[in-house]
Amino acid sequence: MPLSARSALPSLAPGLAPEIADRPDRGLPVAPSNGALRPLGLGEVRIDGGFWGERQRLNATAIIEHCEAWVERMGWTGNFDAAVEGRLPQDRRGREFADSDVYKLIEAMAWEIGRTGDAAMDARLRALVERIARVQEPDGYLHTHYGRPGQGARYSDLQWGHELYCYGHLIQAGVARGRTTGRDLLVDIAIRVADHVCETFGPDGIDNVCGHPEIEVALAELGRYTGEQRYLDQAALFVERRGHGRLGDIEFGRSYFQDDVPVRETTVMAGHSVRALYLAAGAVDIAVEQRDAELLEAVRRQTLTTLARRTYLTGGMGAHHEGESFGHDHELPSDRAYSETCAGVASIMVNHRLLLATGDAVHADAVERTLFNVVAASPAQDGRAFFYTNTLHQRVPGSVPDVTQASPRASSSLRAPWFEVSCCPTNVARTFASLGSYLATADADGLQLHQYAPAEIRTRLDDGREVAVRVETAYPADGRVRVTVLEDATVPWTLRLRVPDWATGAVLTVDGERREAEPGYAAVTGAFAAGDVVELDLPVVARWTTADPRVDALRGAVAVERGPVVMALESTDLGAGVNTVVVRTDAAPVERDGAVLVPVATYEPEDGVWPYGDAPRPHAGASRLTPLVPYHAWANRGPSTMRVWMPVG
Amino acid sequence: MPLSARSALPSLAPGLAPEIADRPDRGLPVAPSNGALRPLGLGEVRIDGGFWGERQRLNATAIIEHCEAWVERMGWTGNFDAAVEGRLPQDRRGREFADSDVYKLIEAMAWEIGRTGDAAMDARLRALVERIARVQEPDGYLHTHYGRPGQGARYSDLQWGHELYCYGHLIQAGVARGRTTGRDLLVDIAIRVADHVCETFGPDGIDNVCGHPEIEVALAELGRYTGEQRYLDQAALFVERRGHGRLGDIEFGRSYFQDDVPVRETTVMAGHSVRALYLAAGAVDIAVEQRDAELLEAVRRQTLTTLARRTYLTGGMGAHHEGESFGHDHELPSDRAYSETCAGVASIMVNHRLLLATGDAVHADAVERTLFNVVAASPAQDGRAFFYTNTLHQRVPGSVPDVTQASPRASSSLRAPWFEVSCCPTNVARTFASLGSYLATADADGLQLHQYAPAEIRTRLDDGREVAVRVETAYPADGRVRVTVLEDATVPWTLRLRVPDWATGAVLTVDGERREAEPGYAAVTGAFAAGDVVELDLPVVARWTTADPRVDALRGAVAVERGPVVMALESTDLGAGVNTVVVRTDAAPVERDGAVLVPVATYEPEDGVWPYGDAPRPHAGASRLTPLVPYHAWANRGPSTMRVWMPVG
Repeated sequence: MPLSARSALPSLAPGLAPEIADRPDRGLPVAPSNGALRPLGLGEVRIDGGFWGERQRLNATAIIEHCEAWVERMGWTGNFDAAVEGRLPQDRRGREFADSDVYKLIEAMAWEIGRTGDAAMDARLRALVERIARVQEPDGYLHTHYGRPGQGARYSDLQWGHELYCYGHLIQAGVARGRTTGRDLLVDIAIRVADHVCETFGPDGIDNVCGHPEIEVALAELGRYTGEQRYLDQAALFVERRGHGRLGDIEFGRSYFQDDVPVRETTVMAGHSVRALYLAAGAVDIAVEQRDAELLEAVRRQTLTTLARRTYLTGGMGAHHEGESFGHDHELPSDRAYSETCAGVASIMVNHRLLLATGDAVHADAVERTLFNVVAASPAQDGRAFFYTNTLHQRVPGSVPDVTQASPRASSSLRAPWFEVSCCPTNVARTFASLGSYLATADADGLQLHQYAPAEIRTRLDDGREVAVRVETAYPADGRVRVTVLEDATVPWTLRLRVPDWATGAVLTVDGERREAEPGYAAVTGAFAAGDVVELDLPVVARWTTADPRVDALRGAVAVERGPVVMALESTDLGAGVNTVVVRTDAAPVERDGAVLVPVATYEPEDGVWPYGDAPRPHAGASRLTPLVPYHAWANRGPSTMRVWMPVG
Repeated sequence: MPLSARSALPSLAPGLAPEIADRPDRGLPVAPSNGALRPLGLGEVRIDGGFWGERQRLNATAIIEHCEAWVERMGWTGNFDAAVEGRLPQDRRGREFADSDVYKLIEAMAWEIGRTGDAAMDARLRALVERIARVQEPDGYLHTHYGRPGQGARYSDLQWGHELYCYGHLIQAGVARGRTTGRDLLVDIAIRVADHVCETFGPDGIDNVCGHPEIEVALAELGRYTGEQRYLDQAALFVERRGHGRLGDIEFGRSYFQDDVPVRETTVMAGHSVRALYLAAGAVDIAVEQRDAELLEAVRRQTLTTLARRTYLTGGMGAHHEGESFGHDHELPSDRAYSETCAGVASIMVNHRLLLATGDAVHADAVERTLFNVVAASPAQDGRAFFYTNTLHQRVPGSVPDVTQASPRASSSLRAPWFEVSCCPTNVARTFASLGSYLATADADGLQLHQYAPAEIRTRLDDGREVAVRVETAYPADGRVRVTVLEDATVPWTLRLRVPDWATGAVLTVDGERREAEPGYAAVTGAFAAGDVVELDLPVVARWTTADPRVDALRGAVAVERGPVVMALESTDLGAGVNTVVVRTDAAPVERDGAVLVPVATYEPEDGVWPYGDAPRPHAGASRLTPLVPYHAWANRGPSTMRVWMPVG
């Protein structure tokens, strides 16, 4: 579906910056030129409270400011000043990719300013951008860790240098700014960087790629934003170059940076999870723009196989701490789940793109699961501490991080205010700020609602008709979703509501008539009148979940899910450690006063000299109904132990 | 028991270098001045064939020469020449600790020369030592990676520099040489290095430790060998300094190099396994020599807890690839077992020392289990390839390593000829060469046999009486151990035979009289006459083994052990991959024609879009009796998948 026929967008929200409403691309994070579904942007979807509205409020009032303070405190913004003042390399702070976190923060601010029109934040963004602009060299090169006397030469370390990775985040920030506020200094910087990349790494340039994919997805979007084919071509070149061993071997193996197998021959994601997923996102963009069905199918297949075999119940990806990588098929140990927050963000990027390209609900299911159980799990309730990794089994209580220090370790066992490698907090911030765009899409026939949140959604269909709905729901606490049509229609259009894969027995009510809705999309077509109501009732009740028998780590264990929310047993509620428990599964989990409870019994372990032999089964006592906590809310009450999967006893 | 009363050793084997037999310490790897049991050395124990004799033959004819060729080929011996010729740092090859593998190889050669009197190997050893000697600086410093123009300064990187670690292996080589051939150039080099260490790191010197423990155990033994208290004092100083954060923090955390908690306050081993175990071995030596009961008890307790909670069925240690470290209690995933071969060697070092100090059979059990299932698993049948890590579940067939290249990765999935970090092959070589010393000990009352192999064992008790036995056995293929006394005795002495923990129903036959022997030590006391026979019959039959319920990774799975040998299911025998199997445990494993067979059924997996939900139980078909392979012999028939723990179906 070419989008050239799109009409001008009706203005939606008074809080939006006035520039947005008239922009043809409507504040879109991803704007493919074709595909099964057309994305809606921040100018078309406004979240009004609820689970995600609360996260957006937290982002606006705490997370973004927290990130601003920490990039300053860590000296990562100061690196740009030091560059201008000739104090590099001696005054440089942070890892080689420290620039990228400043860029990702700016991207988050750009979406947030677009969403709310926050003038104070806009001033802060401009001030940051000015500090960066002064560092850009005449040929467009911009990096604080390379190229000066005493530093490594430009592009001398493509394996680990992260120069193009940093550019990628800078370009994404530029696109976000351009699509919300309009072309300004940040957009210009991004374009100059992109031009430099095309000149330096073009067909006649350096015949290599960056150790960390990211430039691909960024250049593709810049190509869409500017209409410049060369950026798309350069992104495609990077995608095709990869997988042929150009980067050389490393201790983790070439699969670490996906340089062992070309993307179009990859059958399942492997190696460093975030790298694999960022690359896949870029590959989808290229496949869509080049109408390369083979490449699209390759990424679709590898994503489906990754979902079916290499993904945690939470939607988390990455089973190895070593190399932050995917494990083999079905190798998904709860206690060693890496499940990096950034991999969750990246999985959402991939699945959102595949949803737009294919319309397959499986990708919207994956987005929902990952949003609720990975991205939402990362920030603390006050937005000032984060999980970098997201384990599914905490065996020993973590120690409380020093809130004045960046954690040296990614896998801190409690949320930490910042990390020496701190990619995750800014990734959460940019996702929350742009979250509206993940809720709904349009096609020639009407609207599709993929994620449920209280919201107002308003767009024009291809023929210029305005369609608009209000969504009211307490989801995921409650499964009822009420959609009210806001505009009269003279010609019928179709409203599609996603029924998640787990929602067996969902009911759709239209004009008082109830009908069962199968997982996938429930469709209602009509010449709706303003005030018409469609209600979807999703069976949000706590349920037992078991795992594929090939997942060795989960044999003999069950989890509890409630709607899209994975539940967890936390020692805080058990009054004991979670390592010596069994759960009784004769009856369904109990729901009482908004809590989910399951019968848990504990046992006294017997420590012999050797833990193998004719081991006795645990002598667990009587079970006690014990409340579970949503996984995303664990570790908010001090050090604890926790498990998602509970042994059946 | 002070050993000062020891008598001169009777000469044992014609193959032994003549110097050994007269040396008071008898070719001992470990020579404590006190303890429950007195070790016997290479001059007192000769292995004659059988399982371990075959490994010693392999070591003599292949492994050692293979290691000699590879340290040469990799340029690690050449580094010493380059140092002399002023070609460092530009010509230096290998990692910062490359010197250590040359030293560990020399240690292996020293024991081997002591064992067999191999004159050609002796000439090669002397040639190697001369190349090294020329590099030692006037003050004793000796390292190819530091101290020259263009290199880091001496001791400028104690976290990662490995200087003292390399010295430790050099000193161990020197002690091995001194205790087998006598004092020579190698011993002198080692003593000069040790003197340098005492001067540089003594009470008034650098107040720090090496990131990798090893110097402690080496200095302690050099102190014993030379009778110089200062080496023991320096070792004690290193042990006590550690655990107070002197090394600074790193990404893996201070526990990585055991600098978070002092040894005497450590309750269970943590961090990098080999580091933790080398340190513990040194701490036992110090505790014994200083008669420091508190320190000894601390190491004993932490070792017992580590065996009970952080050790694989194979005896392997180290559950994380990241940081090559121990996991938390009961965190023992089969598929991510690191179980480094060197950690196996180090565990044997610790447990052998604790056996000598305490006489507790649990440590001899641990030595046996680790020898058969970790150390014996490392080398290929031709002695020219090695496992570095020893997984308990191979999910995908490995790729055949290039035999002309060092593997860049420790966790190669098939045995590799060499590694870029190649600590394991030389560790196997030195262990095999000195294996005789692990078989038996003496005390005031007589002899104790801990490990069973065809052997001749001959020593003098404290009162000068000569005792000698011949052991005949096909163990572990068969459980019968026949011990024939070789010398008449006028005064009674006691022969003790270890009954392994698993050997319920063992029978001891003395003078035709059978009696049940409980796990621990079965004792027979008598004024034996030459020709007297004591027979131990251990119930070596295949048995099912289950795991402590706290080991989440093994829930619902069983393993098979036969005597001390852990068995494994390999795809080669199954004719299919091992990931989709269940085993039926209604009856005992079957033994037929020397093979162990179990009923295994396979199932067709169902790949949905999502691996969680109301997952079906596998529909396994009829079972088929399938042979298992000893774990130590797996992966000798080409790429395969393998599992030790089989799901019960």
